[in-house]
Amino acid sequence: MSNNNAKATSGTTWHYNKSKNRNAGEQKKKNLSKFRVIPLGGLGEIGKNMTVVEYEDQMLVVDCGIGFPDDSMPGVDLVIPDTTYLEENAHKLQGFVLTHGHEDHIGALPYVLRMVNAPVYGTLLTLGIVESKLEEHGLVKSASLNQVNAGDKIKLGKFSVEFIHVNHSIADACAIAITTGAGTLLFSGDFKIDLTPIQGEPMDLARFGELGKEGVLALFMESTNSERAGYTMSERTVGHSLREIFLSNTDKRIIIATFSSNVHRVQQIIDYSHKCGRKVVLSGRSMVTIINAAVKYGYMDIPEGTIIDINETKRFKPSEITIVTTGTQGEPMSALSRMAFSEHDKVTLGEDDLVVISASTIPGNEKDVTKITNELLKKGVTLLNDEVADVHVSGHACAEELKLLIHMTKPRYFVPMHGEYRHLKRNCQLAKDMGIDVTNTCIAEIGDCLEIGTDVFRIIEKVPSGKVLIDGLGVGDVGSVVLRDRRHLAEDGIIIVVSSIDMDSMQIMSGPDIVSRGFVYVKESEELMDGLRHKAQEVLEKCLDDGVSEYNVIKGRIKDVLTNYIYSITKRKPMILPIIMEV
Amino acid sequence: MSNNNAKATSGTTWHYNKSKNRNAGEQKKKNLSKFRVIPLGGLGEIGKNMTVVEYEDQMLVVDCGIGFPDDSMPGVDLVIPDTTYLEENAHKLQGFVLTHGHEDHIGALPYVLRMVNAPVYGTLLTLGIVESKLEEHGLVKSASLNQVNAGDKIKLGKFSVEFIHVNHSIADACAIAITTGAGTLLFSGDFKIDLTPIQGEPMDLARFGELGKEGVLALFMESTNSERAGYTMSERTVGHSLREIFLSNTDKRIIIATFSSNVHRVQQIIDYSHKCGRKVVLSGRSMVTIINAAVKYGYMDIPEGTIIDINETKRFKPSEITIVTTGTQGEPMSALSRMAFSEHDKVTLGEDDLVVISASTIPGNEKDVTKITNELLKKGVTLLNDEVADVHVSGHACAEELKLLIHMTKPRYFVPMHGEYRHLKRNCQLAKDMGIDVTNTCIAEIGDCLEIGTDVFRIIEKVPSGKVLIDGLGVGDVGSVVLRDRRHLAEDGIIIVVSSIDMDSMQIMSGPDIVSRGFVYVKESEELMDGLRHKAQEVLEKCLDDGVSEYNVIKGRIKDVLTNYIYSITKRKPMILPIIMEV
Repeated sequence: MSNNNAKATSGTTWHYNKSKNRNAGEQKKKNLSKFRVIPLGGLGEIGKNMTVVEYEDQMLVVDCGIGFPDDSMPGVDLVIPDTTYLEENAHKLQGFVLTHGHEDHIGALPYVLRMVNAPVYGTLLTLGIVESKLEEHGLVKSASLNQVNAGDKIKLGKFSVEFIHVNHSIADACAIAITTGAGTLLFSGDFKIDLTPIQGEPMDLARFGELGKEGVLALFMESTNSERAGYTMSERTVGHSLREIFLSNTDKRIIIATFSSNVHRVQQIIDYSHKCGRKVVLSGRSMVTIINAAVKYGYMDIPEGTIIDINETKRFKPSEITIVTTGTQGEPMSALSRMAFSEHDKVTLGEDDLVVISASTIPGNEKDVTKITNELLKKGVTLLNDEVADVHVSGHACAEELKLLIHMTKPRYFVPMHGEYRHLKRNCQLAKDMGIDVTNTCIAEIGDCLEIGTDVFRIIEKVPSGKVLIDGLGVGDVGSVVLRDRRHLAEDGIIIVVSSIDMDSMQIMSGPDIVSRGFVYVKESEELMDGLRHKAQEVLEKCLDDGVSEYNVIKGRIKDVLTNYIYSITKRKPMILPIIMEV
Repeated sequence: MSNNNAKATSGTTWHYNKSKNRNAGEQKKKNLSKFRVIPLGGLGEIGKNMTVVEYEDQMLVVDCGIGFPDDSMPGVDLVIPDTTYLEENAHKLQGFVLTHGHEDHIGALPYVLRMVNAPVYGTLLTLGIVESKLEEHGLVKSASLNQVNAGDKIKLGKFSVEFIHVNHSIADACAIAITTGAGTLLFSGDFKIDLTPIQGEPMDLARFGELGKEGVLALFMESTNSERAGYTMSERTVGHSLREIFLSNTDKRIIIATFSSNVHRVQQIIDYSHKCGRKVVLSGRSMVTIINAAVKYGYMDIPEGTIIDINETKRFKPSEITIVTTGTQGEPMSALSRMAFSEHDKVTLGEDDLVVISASTIPGNEKDVTKITNELLKKGVTLLNDEVADVHVSGHACAEELKLLIHMTKPRYFVPMHGEYRHLKRNCQLAKDMGIDVTNTCIAEIGDCLEIGTDVFRIIEKVPSGKVLIDGLGVGDVGSVVLRDRRHLAEDGIIIVVSSIDMDSMQIMSGPDIVSRGFVYVKESEELMDGLRHKAQEVLEKCLDDGVSEYNVIKGRIKDVLTNYIYSITKRKPMILPIIMEV
């Protein structure tokens, strides 16, 4: 079994026999080869999944997602994983393999491919979404996108990579099995077991069972719903609720907000609309983009003439219209938000409208969603959401499904992925319940390098890792100092103290003038501003009299005196920025 | 029944007979007198309850609470209701009557009493908390605090005011019935029906029944839990869970976080600690303050020697200690947060600790709470919260209790209070379910003046109202312009362009210099900074060459050119602040 130099040929499968390996005495030679696995994202917080898998002198990357900024990162648009390690090891990289087309699994590609270009492998819909992203960034020509199908097994350098069909809230999602001389690693990706999916098959449980028999060295499994007992309901159950809603609201215009990437949800909405003689309007840029891609690649089947442009709605009665829109998370610029706040130029909501929010609220967005909910109710619309009707199901496996996958794949080692620490911890508990020894489970942190082999399972080092913040076109030029300044500015604003000095004569030529922004209404605080000017002048004159000519010293003194002065009067600490001009 | 000029003597009750009034034909004269009721807070958002009640030439204020800032108000500490209307009508004011001692019902008193001083009426614990607040603001001497007991009926000018015992998550809470010649208004305050309270009696349902028979003109009822079906559980059920927790964790130190004002919860924790031979440490400033007040006024009964100082814990085994702490909402400076992030100088958490979060997460605080949860789990503590154990019950009535109060008080008119719009709307639905005609219910907005009489129920005008923001010691000096600037500063930072000009010779004497904060790392963006300086110089020279000497024009041009320049390169829009000094 010693095959450090073994090179499997394309299409063959390396058979890892767990039972033999567990009983080393039966083997002639020990398998000493090992993987190195490094999560660079997706742990400790939702989003930005990216995991490095290394074997000998080669490297693969599983997924490449973005995260979204929290309150401590004002002005930041996106968060991507640190790519330092990838750049340093670019020569090893065989490619990026993608599980599915959600932002937190593919969104960082336009940024990362610029640093480290390598072929990208994924299913049709996944690559369709990636392509439209790369187009926005003008990167389509330089990228190598390679389509695979669920069930395919491809050879990337020393890695054999198999894509296995799973169910999820986006079509064409896969788990990925990576096999080398060291064994098989299985990445579940995001999944659920849907036995009655809207399109395609239930997830390929038989193949997972085979893998389990062949031997899975380590299972890397998502943890989103690990705290939820039982099973996640089938997407089809939403259909039953939608059917009921359409049948009992024939007199109303129906507006349904959902995730644009949930093409099966949108398919169901379109189907029921068509059956009830309604036309469908798609609203919101991402909704239009993704549905168009899904139709183009055959993931949706839309009856001729069902979808109309929003400008054509005048030709129909409101009760003949369904509007499918984005904005389930209360995003301020989304179509639903603009409708709720009467800022949508085509849609005016009122008492004859039924609004369905066919989604759950992602933690952190509660306040934004509540704002929209209140506005919608003020308009007199009838509102249905997942609190009062079965209009949403999760795309992630609950505890019993997670346990089922562990049972079928019988991994030697278990590493929870994709979740907050609490979810990872619970997922380890599930593995333990399924008989995996606690020493064979590990909660890795971002940047931890896990060495994994038949007889080794440990963190051996930490590689450069963390968050890179994207603000506008800038990648990584906003860091902790800039963010700290932004938060400081947001708290109490800024006071600028500007003066001109002739350093030859040590004379103040002009100023000090006080300019403030975000501090107080200046007109109502003239006294305070006069006080500040007076204080600054005192300090400045004292410095010049004492012969202090070092700008930083003068600035420091002005800052200290003014900070104390303002705090004593207002109990606030605005940023004080002294500027000295030499004339 | 015409009693516009009737003046009830102290202690008498004005009997409003609903059945007669509903049948005006039976009456000799119609009752034409009316109330005017103006909510100045507590609607559309949680918090800052304050309602004006007017009758003839007199006025009362029910409650006087603060709210907390949301993400759109950076740097703001507190929000209080606009007091313009109170100030304009101060001569009418007979007093402030308080339902209970929670911040959102009493917290604005230190600010409002400064504007409009009038006597304050409340129960013992309520006034105890008010007093400690006024002390902090140095206002105790000037304030008139008047203690009442539940069951008391007092005369304030033309108003007869009755305090009626209710259950809530703080002791000594009351509903308030206000009676004049126009009838009786009933303010529920915050309440629940607890038939097995920890201390004192179940709420005085019999008295509500009597009021219903006597006739309630309008019921102003809280709406917090109107969307929740059924009944709120008794505070005592938490005790059963706590008992179980104490009995099955005899080997662990127990840390319980809860709301400091929930003295009955803390009482139960202390009782079980004492029974199990544990000493109790109170941690967090508000916890110490409120528990001390509750003990002083006899609302708690603490076994001698049970409470110890945190410095005494060394004398005991960890398993002999219970720590009761604040911080259930993930507040970054709270004791629990400091423990979780290893910043507490007295308490180090580990695997031998059990942490119980005996509270629910207030909407909007989810992310902060999750951060602490993750940190606690990383420390290896065992964690119990309301998701996995019955360690918390709400202090607010659910739908069936709200309906019960409507049933007992049989109000002619119904006005939902204290909640988001969605809660108010649902509360109206409950009233409708209880047989109140929809035209006799009304969702008022802040500042709406409701005219209420036997035959009138309508909004007649809007009075000055809204939010006043408190930042440090400043009251109302932070408004929309300042907040807009703060948000702008937080988004992309500030770029200051400063230059000295000799206006006589139309010469640039110094600069333009570029100073930025919160924009980008300057060291990595020297090229951009050079470009900005160059652009600013171009504009400035052009202005001077063209003989433009108006500062605002020059500044405007610099701002426009630099804004476009930066956006074209970075897709960001920092605040551009040109400063010109004349030398």
